[in-house]
Amino acid sequence: MRQQKGSHGARRAPVENRTSLYLEDIPRGEAEARLRNALIDAHLWGVLGSETIKLDEHAAGRVTSAPVWARISSPSYHAAAMDGFAIRSSSTHRAAPHAPVVLSVGQAGTLPSGPESQYVDTGDALPEWADAVIPMENVEPLDEQDRPSVDVRAPARVRIRASVPPWSHVRPMGEDIVATQLVLPSGHVLRPVDLGAVAAAGYDSIQVARKPRVAIIPTGTELLPLGSTPAPGGILEYNSLVLAAQISQMGGVATRFDVVRDDPGLIAEAVGRAAGDHDLVLLNAGSSAGAEDFSAMVIGKMGSVLVHGVAVRPGHPVIIGLLGSDAATGRPARPVIGVPGYPVSAALTLDIFVEPILATWLGRTTAQPAIEAAELTRKITSPSGDEDHVRVAVGRVGDRLLAAPLASGAGVITSLVQADGIVVIPSGVQGLEAGERVDVRLYRTRPELDRTVFCIGSHDVTLDLLAQWLSRSGRRLVSANVGSQGGLVALRRGLAHLAGCHLLDPDTGQYNIPSIRKYMPGMPVKVVRLASRQQGLIVKRGNPKRLGAIADLSRADVVFVNRQRGAGTRVLLDHHLDQTGIAPESIRGYEQEEYTHLAIAAAIAGGRADCGLGIAAAAAALELDFVPLFSEQYDLVMPAEHAASDLLGPLLKLLMPGPFRDEVSRLPGYDVSVMGDVVLDDG
Amino acid sequence: MRQQKGSHGARRAPVENRTSLYLEDIPRGEAEARLRNALIDAHLWGVLGSETIKLDEHAAGRVTSAPVWARISSPSYHAAAMDGFAIRSSSTHRAAPHAPVVLSVGQAGTLPSGPESQYVDTGDALPEWADAVIPMENVEPLDEQDRPSVDVRAPARVRIRASVPPWSHVRPMGEDIVATQLVLPSGHVLRPVDLGAVAAAGYDSIQVARKPRVAIIPTGTELLPLGSTPAPGGILEYNSLVLAAQISQMGGVATRFDVVRDDPGLIAEAVGRAAGDHDLVLLNAGSSAGAEDFSAMVIGKMGSVLVHGVAVRPGHPVIIGLLGSDAATGRPARPVIGVPGYPVSAALTLDIFVEPILATWLGRTTAQPAIEAAELTRKITSPSGDEDHVRVAVGRVGDRLLAAPLASGAGVITSLVQADGIVVIPSGVQGLEAGERVDVRLYRTRPELDRTVFCIGSHDVTLDLLAQWLSRSGRRLVSANVGSQGGLVALRRGLAHLAGCHLLDPDTGQYNIPSIRKYMPGMPVKVVRLASRQQGLIVKRGNPKRLGAIADLSRADVVFVNRQRGAGTRVLLDHHLDQTGIAPESIRGYEQEEYTHLAIAAAIAGGRADCGLGIAAAAAALELDFVPLFSEQYDLVMPAEHAASDLLGPLLKLLMPGPFRDEVSRLPGYDVSVMGDVVLDDG
Repeated sequence: MRQQKGSHGARRAPVENRTSLYLEDIPRGEAEARLRNALIDAHLWGVLGSETIKLDEHAAGRVTSAPVWARISSPSYHAAAMDGFAIRSSSTHRAAPHAPVVLSVGQAGTLPSGPESQYVDTGDALPEWADAVIPMENVEPLDEQDRPSVDVRAPARVRIRASVPPWSHVRPMGEDIVATQLVLPSGHVLRPVDLGAVAAAGYDSIQVARKPRVAIIPTGTELLPLGSTPAPGGILEYNSLVLAAQISQMGGVATRFDVVRDDPGLIAEAVGRAAGDHDLVLLNAGSSAGAEDFSAMVIGKMGSVLVHGVAVRPGHPVIIGLLGSDAATGRPARPVIGVPGYPVSAALTLDIFVEPILATWLGRTTAQPAIEAAELTRKITSPSGDEDHVRVAVGRVGDRLLAAPLASGAGVITSLVQADGIVVIPSGVQGLEAGERVDVRLYRTRPELDRTVFCIGSHDVTLDLLAQWLSRSGRRLVSANVGSQGGLVALRRGLAHLAGCHLLDPDTGQYNIPSIRKYMPGMPVKVVRLASRQQGLIVKRGNPKRLGAIADLSRADVVFVNRQRGAGTRVLLDHHLDQTGIAPESIRGYEQEEYTHLAIAAAIAGGRADCGLGIAAAAAALELDFVPLFSEQYDLVMPAEHAASDLLGPLLKLLMPGPFRDEVSRLPGYDVSVMGDVVLDDG
Repeated sequence: MRQQKGSHGARRAPVENRTSLYLEDIPRGEAEARLRNALIDAHLWGVLGSETIKLDEHAAGRVTSAPVWARISSPSYHAAAMDGFAIRSSSTHRAAPHAPVVLSVGQAGTLPSGPESQYVDTGDALPEWADAVIPMENVEPLDEQDRPSVDVRAPARVRIRASVPPWSHVRPMGEDIVATQLVLPSGHVLRPVDLGAVAAAGYDSIQVARKPRVAIIPTGTELLPLGSTPAPGGILEYNSLVLAAQISQMGGVATRFDVVRDDPGLIAEAVGRAAGDHDLVLLNAGSSAGAEDFSAMVIGKMGSVLVHGVAVRPGHPVIIGLLGSDAATGRPARPVIGVPGYPVSAALTLDIFVEPILATWLGRTTAQPAIEAAELTRKITSPSGDEDHVRVAVGRVGDRLLAAPLASGAGVITSLVQADGIVVIPSGVQGLEAGERVDVRLYRTRPELDRTVFCIGSHDVTLDLLAQWLSRSGRRLVSANVGSQGGLVALRRGLAHLAGCHLLDPDTGQYNIPSIRKYMPGMPVKVVRLASRQQGLIVKRGNPKRLGAIADLSRADVVFVNRQRGAGTRVLLDHHLDQTGIAPESIRGYEQEEYTHLAIAAAIAGGRADCGLGIAAAAAALELDFVPLFSEQYDLVMPAEHAASDLLGPLLKLLMPGPFRDEVSRLPGYDVSVMGDVVLDDG
């Protein structure tokens, strides 16, 4: 298994048919313990080292490696807390509204015992003779003739009409920090305000943990530089980019090595070189047991493989090893992690296995994500032996916090991009039912989730555009594509705010409303038209098979790719097959199902099929040709309670004439004149 | 008002006595609207500009300034999802456990129509003739004589005992990303995985918002460089450090200017220079209306003051202004914020007023802190006209999430360091009662709060040490000092996990137990001895007044500083005053109260008093002298339910012989031989 390739490669063999090298299945806790014990034995379990750095804004994010005890107090003197006059509180004891006290105003040094009062700005040191400040607005400044003084800050005298308690409006020495107190413990991740506190405590430098140096070595003959267009078998090398950014976020420094070909000698050379001046080596990938997976062999030769295969999904084919110390170069032992090639596995391997190492080396606690209980929108199955890390989208629909499982493939990096959190299914649990309460480790805060619009149902490219426009209004549109019927069912179950729908009722020829009443009985809804759009045959460029009608689908030389059951496009197809008397069995590829228009187009562009039913925009997107057949109504369906909510306000506003409508009108096959029309409103 | 000096300066004057320049009291929303409208008029409300940067790990944290639509699909071909054999699914239709199918294994190009099967690694392109992959472990590799093959990856034939559905173990083209789909919207803050998705979509660069450039100009003749020891009236200039780190965290680039003296001409010159190549100028401080507050005057001359004084606490004396455009240099209009001088006001001013500007300029949504409902541990009062931002410590005690208000002074930066969140009391609300439910805008995640040990009661320097040691065990010790009695009362009310206590029972001469039974009747507790410690007189160095006994406190030439009512030290004092027949009224300074031992020492070091009762460690900390008088027992009191909890486990472990005990034993006046002794255990 090579880079960006498969955590599914070389898994546990069924016992009856074990034919090859297989990975172990070590529980996560056990794998972590082996790593920890090896690092303890190698004297590598603890803070790597510390350094004193200048206390400037770049210190933010660093981790203290020693407690900070205050060198000085703050303030280091008694300070005026208001603009006003420093006084002796005793001189005002008898002051009352109708029996004022008048004090002369002097300057520092006027008399050995000090003046009767003295102007002070907020923050000025309190004169030694004074024990209180009376604010400007509580005195009457007088001139030599006891008339109101023109210069309120330098009067000759002040008249005071209330007694002032001792130490009032004074910030006593040490109010903020008392010399010798603990300002920050060791192991503290410095935030902006912490820098201020350390400075206030008398320092211009600070002792922090040295940043762990992490080498990232991408291996794989098939790897291509970013920006290329891979030929079949070629893979863009972007794991090192993601891993480096993760390491940096964890507080380490990453070095990205050049790609190394699948050659054990070259890999060993790179690992040896990396180990010289790095604290940790990440070898990506070749961590499984495929024909070109050399990581375990290389690590085994240079040291020891502690773990090869952990019962975690994604991320199973991980290697944890320790390179031996090298007497020749004086290099100490170094941990090395064989990171699986699939991008989701790679990223999660860092979160699971590398973050705790870096936390230990930095002396901080491990990252603690927020956790919220949410309700699963659908069943998930999980191999019972594995701890399964399921990516979920999270949003609040009505009073319920929902977790919608995303694509589970370890190769689907967009599932991590779209994920709002992770649900961990412990090893031993076979899966979870829809509606079960789960703890979600959140990537986002609750207020962010509360701005999330859950959209489920039929896919349309305008939903991508809508998502882009909504993001400018502080809303996040998360769409799950389950087809039009699936969307209506989800709405009925309270699992989404709105659904995209284009369902033809064969009996009435009417779009959507009959289906809404059927699938959402008794539920008040608002239905707004998004667009009228053309459906037709997506065909290869130049339409080589000369396809022009539904009847062509049953030709023996034509391979079709279908939409999934419940999709509006599938209903449309089946309706027309029925009308024209074509048997589904006569269509080659009728059973090949895809979930989006773009996936249909991709299947045709990729040669898996000659045609599929879909929309013009999807054909145009992949530079395919399009044969228009039908026009249909694509509507947004929302339960009345959500339609009126603040959450959906910006979305409904976008449907009014404006830039969003203009952008949709430029897509081929869309008629936006109907956009925003209210088709049904029970509210 | 000058740097790090008072939001309390020059506040609203009482109407009856308005004698000076006063600030306005503009509601926050109105102030924000004035700023926004001015920026809209100046064409400065929107993304400042965008730039195309290389897609490397440094792109993390940047904000997309255009949507990312996929250029290519990922995978861009059908790929094997397992190590195994590519086959035609149709050739396995009849395979069954007892009726196996045997396929020959060929190489690419063997036949024009392709071989019957071909070995593939995970990630390899599926051969054109194949439509499925059968994993290694599901085939029996055979040699030419149909015996098990030695080389499992290059057998002559494979035997298959189950039919394989089409497209099984294949990652179809576009499984992750379909060309033209929306990968990321505009305004998205890039995380590590996002970089991978953008790369997978075919890019090696990305368009992001230009970072806003922010000038930070510290003003104030009294300002000193970090690391100095301020003489009275001098102030360490660390606000620019905190502000720069905040700007950087918000996604901007900060330039810290040299300190400018309180001179309107020099300030104007610096502002003009800063405005030339920065998008925003922060002038800190001089934003109030004191004698040396020139910010408003300077801004008014160079442009217009839109707001001077906002009804927000801390942060009231903020200035929002707009510098006019400058035809001579071609400089456009520039916003300028006069940031108040007190450090808490300064930091919160950035959060409240500057973060939304930077968010707009970057095209992202404003930061959305997590919010949790918590219960206030004590009453807070708030000036009714102001929106009050109260810093709170947050922790879970039993089932209750508690918010403990911290010191409210705008000069107390440690209140921000210790804060786990902010409670906003809206303008118009005079305060909140203890026990009220409040929404806390959290700085920490819930799991972090769940590791927080709430300690309340008497202060002891060993608690600072304990906090430092506990941080290594993943626990955070938050202590509030309310005195021994206050701690017991708080425990009874369920407001803390443990209390430090040293209360002498005058009748029995016994420490703590009688008081625990009195203040926590019927509540099962565990009491563990922390140390036996000496109490005595903290006196100036060299003991110039020759103080040696309690009786000396009533001398006319002696000024005392006292601990607050309820403090164990206060109880001890009052007990001995009673025994020796000394009247409290005869002691000068008896009414001066401080809340910690170190504050007592600071009051003596600062000259406010000659002596106070306290512990030797506090005297030693500030290089004062100490006259030992009594020995007392300092215990940790915990309700039985908490004593047995996982949360307090590490704390109890630290009291066993080990490095923490050794460190305490080195403090003057501590006997640690009793540390960890269980004095009482009802559990």
